[in-house]
Parts: sequence; structure tokens; C-alpha cells
Amino acid sequence: MPLITVNLIENVFSSEQKAEIIEKLTDTMVAIEGENMRQVTWVKIEEVPEGQWGIGGTPLTAAMVHQIQKG
Amino acid sequence: MPLITVNLIENVFSSEQKAEIIEKLTDTMVAIEGENMRQVTWVKIEEVPEGQWGIGGTPLTAAMVHQIQKG
Amino acid sequence: MPLITVNLIENVFSSEQKAEIIEKLTDTMVAIEGENMRQVTWVKIEEVPEGQWGIGGTPLTAAMVHQIQKG
Amino acid sequence: MPLITVNLIENVFSSEQKAEIIEKLTDTMVAIEGENMRQVTWVKIEEVPEGQWGIGGTPLTAAMVHQIQKG
Amino acid sequence: MPLITVNLIENVFSSEQKAEIIEKLTDTMVAIEGENMRQVTWVKIEEVPEGQWGIGGTPLTAAMVHQIQKG
Amino acid sequence: MPLITVNLIENVFSSEQKAEIIEKLTDTMVAIEGENMRQVTWVKIEEVPEGQWGIGGTPLTAAMVHQIQKG
Repeated sequence: MPLITVNLIENVFSSEQKAEIIEKLTDTMVAIEGENMRQVTWVKIEEVPEGQWGIGGTPLTAAMVHQIQKG
Repeated sequence: MPLITVNLIENVFSSEQKAEIIEKLTDTMVAIEGENMRQVTWVKIEEVPEGQWGIGGTPLTAAMVHQIQKG
Repeated sequence: MPLITVNLIENVFSSEQKAEIIEKLTDTMVAIEGENMRQVTWVKIEEVPEGQWGIGGTPLTAAMVHQIQKG
Repeated sequence: MPLITVNLIENVFSSEQKAEIIEKLTDTMVAIEGENMRQVTWVKIEEVPEGQWGIGGTPLTAAMVHQIQKG
Repeated sequence: MPLITVNLIENVFSSEQKAEIIEKLTDTMVAIEGENMRQVTWVKIEEVPEGQWGIGGTPLTAAMVHQIQKG
Repeated sequence: MPLITVNLIENVFSSEQKAEIIEKLTDTMVAIEGENMRQVTWVKIEEVPEGQWGIGGTPLTAAMVHQIQKG
């Protein structure tokens, strides 16, 4: 405790970005709860394939998410 | 909010059926909560490989599920 | 299998609406997978307290969600 | 997408800390994925009662966690 | 890792049974993965209120589950 | 109900061990709740790829976990 689970769509984030997500979310949590909690602070990233995550009933692809990122 | 997560076993449903699950579960939820909630209604489908879902201790394959579907 | 989990914020939906969500999401899923799957189709509703669900970093209250519903 | 779920034990964090967790985890994620993703970045906090989270088979209380925090 | 999450309906299990579930599921897992993994083996119990878990579209109460237990 | 979800890192456990996890966790749960509950006791195993589960901010590989197992 604590456990942080990050749900994503495949192919949106690179391996490097996912390592950064684990590192930085851990640091953010530890800054709030205290450094002594670091070794009991877990972060896991779970991804679903493109087309298996819908917003408003529309399945999303990585390209659609990248479009949102560009604005 | 709301978030709907659908857990399935791989190879039971086709891609078309999974798109239908996202669309129709969203429509069902929106009919209850109101159309204005559509864009904050998420549906994600998470699948585990065959053999990683047990009922009563027996791991299921897609073929076993298809047998149940046939009755 | 299948398992449908619906994540909500407390105090947005009445008990009657939550029973309706369970009934209608089950019916929608069974219409796709077949009536023989009904008894292995589970729906559970998990709620978090108001203030423990954030969109864009802003924690939501039930009143805020009801505002979205009104449009 | 993305969805961040934070699992905690009740009575370890104050309401203010939980609002801070939502705000700061969102900011950390947005710094990686881009500001345009803010409104589709969700963070929810789920808590289990004291005694319903075990490490190594030992159920934890909030006091035990506070002890870890002190080091 | 590993993390074991047990989803239940409220009022079916006593506090003593829930402590037993944490202890015995941990022991079972450790017997497979090795004693050195004990301190990184987590078990958490999440419960939903009666009426918020449906099988086949029918919301369950604790009394209904106790009926199943009796057979 | 009950549902037991086991989160693991890929390549730590063999298929045989995963079948054993399903079988033995089910047996352990049924010993507590009663044999009549066996057919409504589900166990599913969800795995994340190596590098997508961090402890203390450090992403784990299967080899690292095997090292812990050896002690």
C-alpha cells in the first residue's frame, strides 16, 4: 500500500514513457506519503488493445489519441 | 464517470462483437444516466488468455465457453 | 465470464437506478453472447465517495455530475 | 484514457491529502502525455477498510502504516 | 507482486473469516512461489454493498448467498 | 461471488503453475466459504509485461523476481 494502477491503450506510449510514468508517479506519491513508504509503493501499467476502449461508445485507436495530444 | 470494465476470455468474442459490446453497453448506460453523460461514459474491454480464468477451480478455454453458449 | 464492473461516484444514482443498471447491462450483454450465458454473466457496481474521483485533476461531487446530466 | 486508480487503506490519508493525490498524479501524468490530454485523464481513489489489506498474510491497520511512515 | 484481490458482497463473511482469507490465500500463494516472496505478496479484500452484485441480472443479498452456502 | 483476481508479471510463472494457482486458491476459498460455493467461485489471472510493474519506482523484470525467489 499504496498501489497505483495506470490503464492505457496500447501503442500510445513508448517503453521509455512507461518507465517514466512508473518512476514519476511513484515520486509524486512518495512526496505526499513520505520517503519511508517508497518500498511499499507499487505502480503497475495495464494496457488494452486499440479498439477495446470506448469513449461515448466510440472505440479509440492510438492514432486518435495522438490526435487529441496534438490538440 | 461512469467507467464500465468488461472482463472476458480471449478468443470467445470477435472484434466486431467487442465493438458492439462497447457501443451497446454505452447506449444502455446513457439511456439510464442521460445523453449529456455520453462523453464521460467509458467502456474498456480487458481479456485474459485462455486457461487463466477458472470457475470452481477449472480453467476455461474459449471452446468450453462456446459449448456453454450452445447450451 | 463475462464480468462487468461499473465504477461510479456515490450519491449520483439511486438504488433503483443501480438495480436497473445491473439488469439492463446484463440483458445487453446476453443479447450479444446468447441467453445460455446469462447465469455466468456477472455485473458488480463499485462506488467511490464524492471527492475521490477526479477529471483533469478536479475532484467531482455528485452535484457536479448532476449538473453535467442537466447539460 | 488514461485512468489512474489509487488503492489505499482507510484512515491513512486525510481528505486534503487525497485531493492532493488526485491533483498531483494528474499533473505528473499530464506532464508526460501533454496538456491536451488533461480532460481525459481520470484519477480515482479506492479505499479498503483497515484489516482488509494484508502484506505477507498480516492484515494492516492505519496505525501500522503510520508506523512505517515514521520509519 | 503478486497481488491478490478478493471481491465479495458485504455481510457474507465475518471479520474473522476475512482475516482467515488473507492469511490462507497468502500461504497458498507462497507455497507455489516460494517463502522468499512472502513480503511482496499482497492480498486485499474489496466488498460491494448488498444489491450491487448481480448474477444473471439478479442483484444478490447476503441472505441469498448464505442460502447458496447451505445448499 | 467470490471473485479472486491475481495480478502477476509475465514470464515469472509457468502455465502449469498458473493452473495450480487457480486450482489451489479456489480450494482455499471453498474451504472457508463452503463447498456449495465452488461453482460461483471465480479466479482469474491478469499479467502485465515485464517492465510495467514498479516497486519503489523501479520496473521489475521476471529475472529480478526469480532473484527474489532464490533469496
